[in-house]
Amino acid sequence: MVLGLGTGSTAKHAVTRIGELLHQGKLTNIIGIPTSKMTHELALSVGIPLSDLDSHPVVDLAIDGADEVDPYMNLVKGRGGSLLREKMIEGACKKFVVIVDESKLVEHIGGSGLAMPVEIVPFCWKFTAERLRLLFEEAGCVAKLRMDRESGEPFVTDNKNYIIDLYFEKDIGDLTVASDAILRLPGVVEHGMFLGMATTLIVAGELGVRVKNK
Amino acid sequence: MVLGLGTGSTAKHAVTRIGELLHQGKLTNIIGIPTSKMTHELALSVGIPLSDLDSHPVVDLAIDGADEVDPYMNLVKGRGGSLLREKMIEGACKKFVVIVDESKLVEHIGGSGLAMPVEIVPFCWKFTAERLRLLFEEAGCVAKLRMDRESGEPFVTDNKNYIIDLYFEKDIGDLTVASDAILRLPGVVEHGMFLGMATTLIVAGELGVRVKNK
Repeated sequence: MVLGLGTGSTAKHAVTRIGELLHQGKLTNIIGIPTSKMTHELALSVGIPLSDLDSHPVVDLAIDGADEVDPYMNLVKGRGGSLLREKMIEGACKKFVVIVDESKLVEHIGGSGLAMPVEIVPFCWKFTAERLRLLFEEAGCVAKLRMDRESGEPFVTDNKNYIIDLYFEKDIGDLTVASDAILRLPGVVEHGMFLGMATTLIVAGELGVRVKNK
Repeated sequence: MVLGLGTGSTAKHAVTRIGELLHQGKLTNIIGIPTSKMTHELALSVGIPLSDLDSHPVVDLAIDGADEVDPYMNLVKGRGGSLLREKMIEGACKKFVVIVDESKLVEHIGGSGLAMPVEIVPFCWKFTAERLRLLFEEAGCVAKLRMDRESGEPFVTDNKNYIIDLYFEKDIGDLTVASDAILRLPGVVEHGMFLGMATTLIVAGELGVRVKNK
């Protein structure tokens, strides 16, 4: 089985557990496709055999967390910064299982008040950030360059790009329209809305675990 | 006047001439925004004061060549490899003048049999190239990674990305639909179709020069 390995605090538990099960012989015949350099390192350290999309363009299953989930199972991802690789790999999956706790459920994308990240090329990033802000001006959009907390320099993705974090005061409306408008801006590489991609949602709450299928 | 400076053999003539006119005092008060590192070097060498989109987000006029022009003044650009910066700058122009010779005029985009370039992130480029080819399978698409002739390595853009050159046997149909489909693929940064951007077309032919305005 070819398995997409997510990035972030939730995915970390899954990757570690898969390594344990392989080690115990309870899982066999697994090839992992990591969605970030960080997950690559972790998966190697727990003994999961790895490959990539060039060698394995069809992925059977991916498991990952999310930053927001709306009632239609649309997601915001990439607050950890690896949205592009996640989208490439999780977009190539037959099944994409998303695991979140209840705090990630929102009425609409952006509803948590936290960032919807957009990966852009560094060239003239201020220009691109302003064009992004203008796209969603009616939704009270604020656009901020993501900084690396340690170095104080702009945060750089695995693909050597920058991240603009968009914050919305209001619902941005039709997400497919919003997605195309963002992608049409030259300078934009990818955004953190994962629309119609999740096939199963697992929500951990105080009263237990709920599973929702598409 | 803020002036977008194109890239390639045609633009080179324009940039050199602007430098001469500035030197002779026949042009004054010009700030150039170069669309590539190559044009940046050339413009500096002929004495054009330079800036960028972050400082000058509105460009009065851009002048550039094109690789193909269809009857609706849609263009293919980027065979020189600088399509992303060209599109950012020429998309921010009040007027965009395109200069070509008659050999660049085509009935439909791709009609010359030459490449329509797509800039992609290097990560899993084979996977992205195959997805691009599949998008236009009905048009007999062939997708090739652009190589650097001197080094024999993949050609790398000013933004550190790769180029996939797409060749079409047949008309690819509605260009806006094609554009959105390309941009929706994660891994794609930008493509070389410049749709509805040119405001003036200057065509040099055996019988003289024709000018067409939008």
